[in-house]
Amino acid sequence: MTAAPLALTMGEPAGVGGEIAMKAWLAGREDDQVPVFFIIDDLDRLQKLGKTAGLDVPLAGIETPAEAAGVFASAMPVLHRPLPGTAVPGEADQKNAAAVISAIETAVTLTGAGEAAAVVTNPIHKKVLYDAGFAFPGHTEFLASLAGVHTSPVMMLTCPGLRVVPVTVHVGLAEAIKTLSTDDIVTIASITAESLKRDFAIARPRLAVAGLNPHAGEGGSMGNEEQTIVGPAIEKLRDMSVDAFGPCPPDTLFFEAARAGYDAAICMYHDQALIPIKTLDFENAVNVTLGLPFVRTSPDHGTAFEIAGSGRASPASLLAALRMAADMADRRGA
Amino acid sequence: MTAAPLALTMGEPAGVGGEIAMKAWLAGREDDQVPVFFIIDDLDRLQKLGKTAGLDVPLAGIETPAEAAGVFASAMPVLHRPLPGTAVPGEADQKNAAAVISAIETAVTLTGAGEAAAVVTNPIHKKVLYDAGFAFPGHTEFLASLAGVHTSPVMMLTCPGLRVVPVTVHVGLAEAIKTLSTDDIVTIASITAESLKRDFAIARPRLAVAGLNPHAGEGGSMGNEEQTIVGPAIEKLRDMSVDAFGPCPPDTLFFEAARAGYDAAICMYHDQALIPIKTLDFENAVNVTLGLPFVRTSPDHGTAFEIAGSGRASPASLLAALRMAADMADRRGA
Repeated sequence: MTAAPLALTMGEPAGVGGEIAMKAWLAGREDDQVPVFFIIDDLDRLQKLGKTAGLDVPLAGIETPAEAAGVFASAMPVLHRPLPGTAVPGEADQKNAAAVISAIETAVTLTGAGEAAAVVTNPIHKKVLYDAGFAFPGHTEFLASLAGVHTSPVMMLTCPGLRVVPVTVHVGLAEAIKTLSTDDIVTIASITAESLKRDFAIARPRLAVAGLNPHAGEGGSMGNEEQTIVGPAIEKLRDMSVDAFGPCPPDTLFFEAARAGYDAAICMYHDQALIPIKTLDFENAVNVTLGLPFVRTSPDHGTAFEIAGSGRASPASLLAALRMAADMADRRGA
Repeated sequence: MTAAPLALTMGEPAGVGGEIAMKAWLAGREDDQVPVFFIIDDLDRLQKLGKTAGLDVPLAGIETPAEAAGVFASAMPVLHRPLPGTAVPGEADQKNAAAVISAIETAVTLTGAGEAAAVVTNPIHKKVLYDAGFAFPGHTEFLASLAGVHTSPVMMLTCPGLRVVPVTVHVGLAEAIKTLSTDDIVTIASITAESLKRDFAIARPRLAVAGLNPHAGEGGSMGNEEQTIVGPAIEKLRDMSVDAFGPCPPDTLFFEAARAGYDAAICMYHDQALIPIKTLDFENAVNVTLGLPFVRTSPDHGTAFEIAGSGRASPASLLAALRMAADMADRRGA
């Protein structure tokens, strides 16, 4: 079977997206381990960027995703979408906001139609999109809306040897504690367990559920959310035949021997999940969205304006995101 | 000069303290890299424990610390303090509580008198001490009281390549946020900077101060403690000529390249500090108490009742604690 190619979005044109895409294609020319992808981007600006960044990457304009496989060995396939604004590294141009958003929509449409296997997104610059009227907190919520999903999608961060899923995400820590609920833990852990089965081929996923407090509250002497919120969620999950255990003391959950005991850690707040991932493996972390009808991954870094255009951006996280998307799509039979 | 030996406390006799002490002494016989120490413990129970745990460690009863250096090459020096209770691995006996406490007092007294160079403590079992009327939350506060120090001492956790200092410690996370104050950050960061100069020979310590919220609040959109509490503390510290910077996004503060940019990270809560340390190096982490008139370190683990007596406990953290105590004491000229 010829699998459909992966659809890679342009992301913010002033960021590192174009550069890491070209470097990912170059890595594929060297070791044949990069799945076929095409980028939805402006062909001319990529050509210029290649020269500025000193990257010798032949580009091939394509009309449909089906052409990507044929050209991938000799050139990076580009589904051309012209940019109305400038694409100066480090300087986001609001004139491009609609094209940035449209590239995401196109990727979702092509994936929904089976022409692309999965959506891989380059980093966006949220402020410029907000100013242009973009009404979503970020990529994830926008993708859910495009997919017609009304539950909140779930963000999983992965690096070799660790998967983490934060239950609360982009809110202040005090607010995260206030809004943490048994229902959210149950919903998010269930979606995680389903995805680990379907997308990661883990027959019986083991979920470690972190406590909120130091030492998981030590029997209520340092906070009681373990008894009132986290513990009841674990009971419900076990009633639903999800193999969840905890509440686990957060500080001893992420060393090597502990990580071997579970397939994903369900974390109560952003940094409980993100600190271990980024401490262990800053370069190769991948952001995966669970609970969507299609596969979506992205590199776990931002637009990196400070190094955009310099040729210094590492494609490692994007490469990991492309490979993970291809593996997940394979398992779904996409 | 002949440096004074290190005073090692017995800790909870039902825990792994005796075993890891003997293994640390054995490691010293092999590589000569273990500083001279003596343990304040029951000679007979150690002799029995050696047999049970299969450790061939000759023991030498000593009357004063000054004798330790002379016997250390051939036997582990023991300042004999008989235990009135039993010492069954895994089963704390409350009859020993007074002796456990007394060993700590003895270590502090000998260090204060210059007969010992520093205090290294084995893990205690708090519950058994509380039941015996011990009125301190833990070791650190007890040591501060023995030293007549009225400010709260500061806990620093270290592993190779990382030092972290939590500003709030053993309280629930919601309570930690509520009690976090500019004054506490300033006090704790100042004590840390002083100790890094005096005890770690870092001429101009660089302190990274973590934010409280995800992305350090991202300009107030996810919590404002960075503006109201953490930022003002950094300003005050800089006014005091302490080289502090931040508030730093917590999740990107602990990967290798980031760690190279500072000598210690000042963390806002227990797990923000402990997750990176224990994720990076579970075995070799050392707990150091700053702000005391003497040097005190301890292994960063508990009594490990579940493996006590089995011969399986690793002495790695205790060895690191002994070496760090000796280095710190050397720099103080103790």
